[in-house]
Amino acid sequence: MSTTTAGPDYSRLFRPGVPEPSGRFTGFPKFNFIGGHNDPTRVPVADLAACAEAVLRREGASLALYNCGHGPQGYGPLRDLVADKLKRHRGLSVTRDDVLITSGSLQGLDLVNDLLLAPGDTVLVEELSYGGAISRVQAKGVHAVPLPLDDEGICIDALSNALDALQAKGVTPKYIYTIPTIQNPTGSILPLARREALLKLARAHGVPVFEDECYADLVWAGIEAPPALYAMDPAQVIHIGSFSKTLAPALRSAYAVAPWPVLARLISLKTDAGSAMVEQMLVAEYFSTHFDQHVTALSGVLKEKLDCMIEAVEREFGSAAELFRPRGGIFLWLKLPAEVDVRTLVKPAAERGIVFNPGPEWAVDPGSATSQLRLCFALPSKAEIREGVAAFAKVCFEQTGIPQQSGNIRN
Amino acid sequence: MSTTTAGPDYSRLFRPGVPEPSGRFTGFPKFNFIGGHNDPTRVPVADLAACAEAVLRREGASLALYNCGHGPQGYGPLRDLVADKLKRHRGLSVTRDDVLITSGSLQGLDLVNDLLLAPGDTVLVEELSYGGAISRVQAKGVHAVPLPLDDEGICIDALSNALDALQAKGVTPKYIYTIPTIQNPTGSILPLARREALLKLARAHGVPVFEDECYADLVWAGIEAPPALYAMDPAQVIHIGSFSKTLAPALRSAYAVAPWPVLARLISLKTDAGSAMVEQMLVAEYFSTHFDQHVTALSGVLKEKLDCMIEAVEREFGSAAELFRPRGGIFLWLKLPAEVDVRTLVKPAAERGIVFNPGPEWAVDPGSATSQLRLCFALPSKAEIREGVAAFAKVCFEQTGIPQQSGNIRN
Repeated sequence: MSTTTAGPDYSRLFRPGVPEPSGRFTGFPKFNFIGGHNDPTRVPVADLAACAEAVLRREGASLALYNCGHGPQGYGPLRDLVADKLKRHRGLSVTRDDVLITSGSLQGLDLVNDLLLAPGDTVLVEELSYGGAISRVQAKGVHAVPLPLDDEGICIDALSNALDALQAKGVTPKYIYTIPTIQNPTGSILPLARREALLKLARAHGVPVFEDECYADLVWAGIEAPPALYAMDPAQVIHIGSFSKTLAPALRSAYAVAPWPVLARLISLKTDAGSAMVEQMLVAEYFSTHFDQHVTALSGVLKEKLDCMIEAVEREFGSAAELFRPRGGIFLWLKLPAEVDVRTLVKPAAERGIVFNPGPEWAVDPGSATSQLRLCFALPSKAEIREGVAAFAKVCFEQTGIPQQSGNIRN
Repeated sequence: MSTTTAGPDYSRLFRPGVPEPSGRFTGFPKFNFIGGHNDPTRVPVADLAACAEAVLRREGASLALYNCGHGPQGYGPLRDLVADKLKRHRGLSVTRDDVLITSGSLQGLDLVNDLLLAPGDTVLVEELSYGGAISRVQAKGVHAVPLPLDDEGICIDALSNALDALQAKGVTPKYIYTIPTIQNPTGSILPLARREALLKLARAHGVPVFEDECYADLVWAGIEAPPALYAMDPAQVIHIGSFSKTLAPALRSAYAVAPWPVLARLISLKTDAGSAMVEQMLVAEYFSTHFDQHVTALSGVLKEKLDCMIEAVEREFGSAAELFRPRGGIFLWLKLPAEVDVRTLVKPAAERGIVFNPGPEWAVDPGSATSQLRLCFALPSKAEIREGVAAFAKVCFEQTGIPQQSGNIRN
């Protein structure tokens, strides 16, 4: 039936600037220290199965309608859950009408970028930030100005200077993108006074704040995070968050919260005929009764894994590694001596089954972070963390002579 | 805690060309004759609930990994199901490696457009086609050349002429977009000889065929559709399809099949960290054992609803309505006398709770379809179909004097 032909010359048909082709997926490496994966032992399998069964039996017929008839903002009970969670944990006063459910917070990033950004525009981004946020901005031909960070987040003086410098050039940046609560990758929490100062500057310059709180629900016990920026000045802020990190990343349920003139445009730009409804129903059904309990337990497990990883890094790298001790989340940011270019470690590490995020991919100015890297700790077991960090230190020593002394090398 | 401020002047911050804001969703109208909704009584609620429970209990822990560890092409068993279904029903010889799971076939459209189209490009599109496909092309600043249709689909002579005319101008179109099997909106099936001729022309001109088979599984009993274009010349065709229409549109599980050099680029462009996995697992679990039985029963119910709608249209509109009798699917395309501009009916119909697709929104050249419209019949009950079509005929008569004689007006 089929004709064997060579097909058209696709290389001449692709649009300009198309990215490189994907390789074949060959499975995850043994020591997988990248990505927002979670701890497989912490997925509440039996409860999710029971919730899915219950909600589908009760409301399954509504799947015959786009968005189950709940409209383009998504499943009503999930929007209620978002509003309730944001009120209790993050200080927001919003209702389901202020919430747009998105397919992962990546769709939130895409929608906000699609609303505001055109080639040649300027945005302000923390100097170290989520790689997917930086690459999205750059793919649009938008100029990202890095904002210096310290161990409490954005340095306000530097933000003020950056805004003034742009104003002097007649440039109004389209937004200040910040991850104020469990900053990615440094794990910091922006103090209340800095939040107030940041908002004051944003107001004075007429610049929206784009607040990404993907990890804000995973703060270690005993640490209190200030309210979200959106809670402090709703008109000035576009807020996104996710259930991927608190429940499971293969579930693509996340949300955006914004003033209606903004939200109404994000809804118009969301031309996907709705996000997956079964997952929305499942997240709402499970988290309506289990959110606090689940997140508290998960955070406890993640903190133990972090402690295990810090112990391993200190044992294997000794004083060669400067650690940014995160106050929650799923990743640890490290700084090695300046003579180590972590990009040279990627290939030899991969050959030993180790993957990590090289600092340059998490930096607005890649050249500023060549000796830094991110290690994620939620997915691997403690034994894998210990073994993987030791193997990584060995690779690093073989390639660079650093760390000179470590548990690994002494063995 | 929160500060009441006016916020930035967003109207000055939006990118150029941003679409109009969405209104608040206020629920569906009583007579909802638009959209790919399905029959709520045909959602296999108990089976879906049982399947979700079983698959989550068995594999739920894998949700802790992006794509459940199956890689960016999606859940392996669902890709196996797609390959098997396409082999048995559409003649394709493909494996899971050739399949990319997408979030609805709309994401397939977006990815293929993102791969191939740049402003100023040209594509060929059936003169009447899916509104979302036409609007996407136009939003990219791409020129769509309409291909004349008759009651068997694309007119091959016209396609040949269009390709020659473009060649004479030095233009290679980026693709021929076609819905060959249950064409949207006319419901036709392209005969085998035309498929062969279309592919021959596509090969001769070096133009890819972009084949959309969203409705191909819903062909009326007794009608045999020829193989998919992809089955007849895999290297020449990019193929998309969906489970939204055969199971439920609130489930966003669809797929793209393409030669690897194309598929590998679509995977690179799919930067959403994966499509919703619970839905992929659920569709695979249910349809692995129920596909043929479910689709056969659903098609039977849809055919009954179509017959009910045709009967109602003939009763209410009489000879004023020319029907395109679909050979499957969920919609009926009508042509009213030329003096009726259906756009003038939108508002008065909506005031009576009736929504329909005006022809101009489903036409590459809107001015060519001002007296045509699409009525979807899967969602409403037979009573709603009868009542809604009668109410619509009344609106039409009140606005235009047409239909002069109908069951409705005589009452």
